Parts: sequence; C-alpha cells; structure tokens
Amino acid sequence: MSSYLALVQRFDRHYLLKSSADVLEWDAQAIMPQGGGDLRAAQLGTLRVLAHDAIATPDMADLLAAAQASPPEDPWERANLASMRRAWVHAAAVPADLVEARTRATSLCELAWRTARRDDDFASLAPKLEEVVNLTRQIGEAKAAAMGISVYDALADEYEQGAREAVLEPLFARLERELPPLVDEILAVQARLPAVADVKGPFPVEKQAALGRVLAERMGFDFTRGRLDVSAHPFCGGAAEDVRMTTRYDESDFLTSVLGVVHETGHALYEMGLPRAWVRQPVGQAAGMGIHESQSLLMEMQAARSPEFLGYLAKTAAKELGISADVLSADALLRRALRVERSLIRVDADEATYPLHVALRFTLERALLSRDLRVADLPGAFRDRMERVVGIRPDTDRDGCLQDVHWPSGAFGYFPSYTIGAIAAAQLFAAAVKAHPSIPSELSRGELTSLLGFARQNVHANGSRYDTSTLLERVTGRGLDVDALLAHLRARYLK
Amino acid sequence: MSSYLALVQRFDRHYLLKSSADVLEWDAQAIMPQGGGDLRAAQLGTLRVLAHDAIATPDMADLLAAAQASPPEDPWERANLASMRRAWVHAAAVPADLVEARTRATSLCELAWRTARRDDDFASLAPKLEEVVNLTRQIGEAKAAAMGISVYDALADEYEQGAREAVLEPLFARLERELPPLVDEILAVQARLPAVADVKGPFPVEKQAALGRVLAERMGFDFTRGRLDVSAHPFCGGAAEDVRMTTRYDESDFLTSVLGVVHETGHALYEMGLPRAWVRQPVGQAAGMGIHESQSLLMEMQAARSPEFLGYLAKTAAKELGISADVLSADALLRRALRVERSLIRVDADEATYPLHVALRFTLERALLSRDLRVADLPGAFRDRMERVVGIRPDTDRDGCLQDVHWPSGAFGYFPSYTIGAIAAAQLFAAAVKAHPSIPSELSRGELTSLLGFARQNVHANGSRYDTSTLLERVTGRGLDVDALLAHLRARYLK
Repeated sequence: MSSYLALVQRFDRHYLLKSSADVLEWDAQAIMPQGGGDLRAAQLGTLRVLAHDAIATPDMADLLAAAQASPPEDPWERANLASMRRAWVHAAAVPADLVEARTRATSLCELAWRTARRDDDFASLAPKLEEVVNLTRQIGEAKAAAMGISVYDALADEYEQGAREAVLEPLFARLERELPPLVDEILAVQARLPAVADVKGPFPVEKQAALGRVLAERMGFDFTRGRLDVSAHPFCGGAAEDVRMTTRYDESDFLTSVLGVVHETGHALYEMGLPRAWVRQPVGQAAGMGIHESQSLLMEMQAARSPEFLGYLAKTAAKELGISADVLSADALLRRALRVERSLIRVDADEATYPLHVALRFTLERALLSRDLRVADLPGAFRDRMERVVGIRPDTDRDGCLQDVHWPSGAFGYFPSYTIGAIAAAQLFAAAVKAHPSIPSELSRGELTSLLGFARQNVHANGSRYDTSTLLERVTGRGLDVDALLAHLRARYLK
Repeated sequence: MSSYLALVQRFDRHYLLKSSADVLEWDAQAIMPQGGGDLRAAQLGTLRVLAHDAIATPDMADLLAAAQASPPEDPWERANLASMRRAWVHAAAVPADLVEARTRATSLCELAWRTARRDDDFASLAPKLEEVVNLTRQIGEAKAAAMGISVYDALADEYEQGAREAVLEPLFARLERELPPLVDEILAVQARLPAVADVKGPFPVEKQAALGRVLAERMGFDFTRGRLDVSAHPFCGGAAEDVRMTTRYDESDFLTSVLGVVHETGHALYEMGLPRAWVRQPVGQAAGMGIHESQSLLMEMQAARSPEFLGYLAKTAAKELGISADVLSADALLRRALRVERSLIRVDADEATYPLHVALRFTLERALLSRDLRVADLPGAFRDRMERVVGIRPDTDRDGCLQDVHWPSGAFGYFPSYTIGAIAAAQLFAAAVKAHPSIPSELSRGELTSLLGFARQNVHANGSRYDTSTLLERVTGRGLDVDALLAHLRARYLK
C-alpha cells in the first residue's frame, strides 16, 4: 500500500471518531439530561484522544514525508495531502494527556457556564475557566513551538488557516477607528425616520419553528440529511450527511429566531455542499471558520436582510404566524431587521456594531493567554472594554463576559472568524450579484437559487483546497478586503 | 500498577467506547435523519471494534492470570475480576475475522429481513440467514471450546450468565405441558364475563406522551438522568446516568403505549439503580438479560397490570387524556389489560401465552444450530410448531418465522431470557409483597415506593455480582422457579 493510501485510512478513522464525538457533543448541547454530564465528558475525552491518536502516531512524520516524496498526481489528492500535513501538525504538536485534560476540563466548564450564566454568578465559573485558560495556553505553547509562530496565532490557526495577529491587529484597529463614527451616522439617519409600530407578540414557539422549517427548506436545507432543534446557544454541528443545527425561541420576538435559523442554514448548506467524494478526508472539510461564517452571513446578512428578501419574509411570516399582512408590514419588518443600536449581546448585535464586539474579545482573549489579564479580573475588564469599544456598559456579567460559550469551551482564537466571515460575505455577495444580476429580484420572491448555486460552485465544492485569502482572491479578485464590508454598510444604511 | 488496576483501566475504556456507541445507536433509532445511515454504520463499526479491542489484546490472559494469582481483598473487586474474566472469554475466544464476517453477514441479513418481512418472502432471506446461522454456529463452537460447554450454552451465556440447556429444556417442556390447559381454563372464565364496552379513541399523541411521563416519573424515573422519546421499536438504551427509553404511539389505543412506557421504565429503573461506584466496570452492569427483563416485567406485568394499579391508572388516564371517568372505567381498563388470547405475534402476546411463543423458538433455534433443522425448512417447522405449542397456525411467514429480528441479527440463545424474566418477576413480586404487605394498597394509589425499594436493594444494587439463579436464591429462597409464574397466572386469571 502506498504511503498516501495508508494516510487516507488513518484520516478516515480520524473522521469517524471525530464525527462520532461531534454527534455526542450536539446531543450534550441540545437534548442530553443534565445527569449525563460526567459520563459524556469522559466519553468525549476518550473519543477525542483516539481521534487525535489516529493521526498522531510516531510514524506519521515518515508517512507524510514518503507521500510528499512521490506525491499523487491528482490535484485533489495533492491538496488532500497538504491538508493532512496541516491537521497532523495541529494534532501531533500536543501531547495526548494534555488534549484529554483539556477536553475533560472544557466539558465540565461548559456545564458550569450554563448555571453561571443563568445565575449571573461568575465566581462559580472562575476556577473552571482558569483551568481551561491554563490548559489552552499550554496547548498553544506546544503548537507555537512546532509551528514557529506566536501562541495566539498557533491557536487561531486551528480555526482559520493562516490567521495571524500581524494581519488581524491592524484590521481590528481600523474597525475600532472607523466603525464608531459610521455607527453614529447610521443612528442619526435612523433617528430621522418616521415612527413605525413594532410588531408585537406573543408568537407561539411551534409557529416560529414551523416558519423556520419553511425558510430552511426553501433555502435548500435537506431535512433527510439534517435536523433543526433547540439549544441555549444556537450552533450547527454534525456531519455533511447528518447536519445538526439548533436555534432558540423567544415568544415575544420571532425575527431573531427566524433569522437565526437562516444563519445556521447558511452554515448547514456549506456542510451539505462540501465535495461528497472527500467527505471523510481533510480536503473535504470546510476551509475554515471564517469561510464557514461567510456562508452563514451570506445567507443571513447579505441575502435575508436585504430589503428585497424582507418583503418576501413579511408575507411568509404573516402567513405562518397567522398575523394580518397589514400588521406585519414589510416596512415594519425592514425597520426591525435593520435596526442599528449599541447593544450588549454579541449574538443579537446588528452587523454594523458586531465587529466591535469581536474586536474587544480579540483584545481580551490575547490578554488572558499572555497573562496580562487574570481570569478573576475578566468581568471588570470586559465591562470597561465593552464601554470603550462598543459604547455601552453591561450592568451584569450575564450581559458581559458570561454571554458567550467560546472561552468556557476552550475556543480561544475563534472570535476573529466572525469578522473575517462578515468581510468575506460582503465580498462574495458583491461578486455573486455581478455574476448573476437577477439575484435581487430572486430574493424578492424568496428564491436563493442563483446565490446558492454561486456559493456551491465557488466555495462549497472546493472543500479546504484553498485558504481564506486565496479562495477570496480566486472568486472575487481580492484577498480579505475590509473595504467591502464598510462599503456594504454604507450602501445599506446611509442611502 | 497492579494487574487488577491495569484491567480496571482497560474495562473503563471499553465502557466509554461501548456507551458512546449505545448513545449513537439510540440516536439512529430515535432521531437521526435517514441520510446519516451510511456514516452512522461506519461510526458504530469503528467504535464497536475499538471497544472489543480494548479488552481483547493478547496480554489480557496474562493480566487476568496475574490478578487471579493475588486477588483483591474487597469482595466487590473480586466479583469484578470474575465479571472481567467472563467478558474477556466472550470477547477473545472468537477469532477477529470470524467476528467481522458475522458482523457483515448480520447487517446484510437484517437489511434483507426488513424487505422479506414486508413482502412475506422468506426465500429472499434464506441464503443470508443460512450464512448467519453457519457463522453463529462457528462462533458458538469457538466459545464452547474455550468454556467447556455446549455450543448453545456458549451462545446463550452471552445474554444470560450461566444459562444452560440442561435447565431450560425441562423448564420449557413443563410450560409446554401445563400452560395450554391453563390457557383453556382462563379463556373459559373470560368467556363467562359480562360484556364491557371497550374505550374508543382517538387519543392524541401529546396527551399519551404526557400520561407516559406522569407515570414514569411517579414510578421513580429520574428525568434529570434520562429521556423518553419515540422510535419504531421501543427499547431502553443509554447508560445508568443517561438512560434513553423510547416508545411508540397509536392514536386508537393508549393502553399499549402507556404499558410500554411502564415496561421500559422498569428496564430504566434497573439501569438507574445499578451501583454508582461500579458504573463503568463489568460488575456494575446488569446481571443479564433475564434479570433485566424481570425488572421490566416486575413493573409492567406484576405491578401495573394488577387490579389495584389498574384502578389508579383508569383515574389518571381519564384525567390526562381528558376522558370522563365513567367512560374509562376501571373495569373496562382491567378487562382490556388482562385479555388472554391465542395470538400470532410474540411482542403483542399476553403473559399467559407469551412463554409458549418463547418455547417454540427455543426448540427451533437449537435445531437450526445442531443442523437438525435446515434453514429452508424453517417456515414450515415454525408454522407447525406454533400450531402445536401456541394453538394457532399462521397463514403467512410474516406472522410466522419472519416476525422477529433476533435470528437475522445473530441473536441465538436470547429468547429464553424473556421467560426467565417472567418467572423471576413472579418470584420477586411475591417476595416483595411478603416483605412489604402494604404493596397492594400502595399500588391502588399508584405508589411504587416499597416495590422499587425492594428491587433496588435486592436486585439493582447487586450489579452483576450474582448469576440469575444465585440472585433469586438469595432474595426469594429459591432458584429459578417456574411454579411462581404458574401460581401468579392462576391467582390473577382464575380467581
């Protein structure tokens, strides 16, 4: 057997173990009874270690070198070999006992986070979070040594191939500088608009769920290859053949949950559109979290919040929720969906202020890792930074540093992906409309055929053959381009 | 590290992999989108092989011998060591390629069985079933050689520790002799009862589900450590901290689903009551399928179908289902729940005729393994035997030898557990009432406190320390005692 084929078998086993753990993790978030927490943490620890071991055995370096010495001719196989090498570096740089310790710590910390957030009780979370920060730092140090980059870059690279502080720091600095005055301008424009009555609930959960299913299906979500359930923190997990997306419902506000479903459907369509022939191999996985987020934002921010689609949504929501179309006017929905305000909760933030929420987390997570910020001081630092960057101060930790699951789950270096995704989505949507000028009129009929076709062909079908910058260059003619996001915001909110 | 502690680690890993697979199997049966089937099969294959490998490495024999040479002093640890040896014999006695060949053959055979049953087409199943019988016989021969017992005993021992033909044969012979005249007597008694109007539906699924939850909770099912969902074939899976039970609903008949929930709750309470300190070790698992079934039948057949509990159930069901208590009388419910008839389908059979369904399968599966019966002749033999033993002749194979999945899935030696469970349940209930004479009056109030306490203390808390016969001897003063079942049937149906 060739070295390359031996590697394919290792990665196949790696995928089967990893995807088993992913389903168990979805189960833990969405439906597991709370008593199962300890057992689940141990199960996930074992599966993650075995998945890790499958591609981190001592002979892997030799196998990769041998495969590299006589590389496969097929370009997909060559790309797969490159993806294998990257996955191996991330896996093999970290000792197995450290991986297992971190998995166990994050499972327990996530469980504690649910209670701590509910009770606004950071103190109960602090020791568990400190353990997660310490173990994550050790993992970052091990990877940094192997990759010859900084601890933060080494951690971020796992989510976003090639992510580097040197690029992200000026990018976020520019957003911290240019967004606040733009937000002020938008607020001034909005203040001058005539009042429109808001649509009042209650909107029963079952009707919202039915509306979400209608939209997801219309967008192309295949319910024979996926599910839509409820969890405290909406996410999209599972595997390409079995995508598990979740949302949460608020009876007083259907729009958040409905657009949340649209967002997760964007993620899900990416997973469902990955190249089938490579589904269990590294090259068949998503290119990175930034591109993943670009696919959700392409659907949610670029398409579904366009005035065209919101007109369709007003009619459809009125029908599914049983509200008169006069009450749920397109104008009222538009005003609600495009309301910009300085607010506390990242996941509820509008697209103009969202990058500022990410910017402050980008600063704080680097400070936690570098020990410039102690976990005990996180609540105060979060409030201060939020006030300075977003321009609003939280009164509670529930609205402050307890709002996100990322750090309790060990995901340091992940947050920048949201903004990379927002920028990429703006670039991709502009390119899609240029290639298919019919897109706006399709959106007004609730059709996503051309946009999804463009994304499938240019993004999904590539798996992880290209990193974010290369992919954007190929599709839009430019690498990651913050101007595209700023131009989109000006066009949508100032005209 | 001592040999014993090294073994504890192996079995801990074995348990974590096995229980992960169990959750994924529950997921596949209860909620997985159909497109996930191929991936799930591959995931389960990988996890089952790894679980097997964890306790079947070549050094296990030496580890077990070393641990045996200086056995632990604690009686639980000694019992655990004995359980380890038994699990190892079942795992290691069979060559890996034979296990793999049987796994392949049974998956194909199970798939073929679904179609064959639907189309009432035994001929399409026959060659695949023959392959399964041959491979299962070879596995039995390998285990028989290692254990020094007969092929059938070696196969049955996997499900029921210490199960032996020498005991089962006279037991079933007696049931085949004594049950048919008893059934005749019961039918005569029932024929003389005045007519009672049956309770007619429809009973909405959500209301049945609510009723099931009320009953399960009242029985002691802890919803912080388990779930109740829906699947085509009700079962109880998961793990002690996270029990996943399922049921199915029929809007025209609430009693089947409600008593199905009671049955699965009996299984679940056993899992939840296993000794916490040993939950991941062999001695902390259920004693065997017979005792497992005895716990479901203790709750369903002995407790819930007692006239006392049915009186409570009539009131509770009327309330939860929104039916007038006059319409849903205790008398109507009792008549419906205790109806005895000679019928074709084992899973729908009443407690008086059920052992006859098992008896004929016990005869036929041994004949298949010993080559006294050819697979091609099974349909005719099944019809003849059913007519002779149960007293009713199936017109089709769908109602005959195609009705059960056990043989296509390779489970030879499993059927006797159902009747061992029914006998043990009768013995345990009698012993419980003797120890707690208040049980019947508790049942009339829907209370299971004393009964569950008795079961927890005398059965659940023992894990698999004792085999069925020893356990029953300790708790009831007698080993497996068919008289207890016959006495129960006479008392319930002839008085």
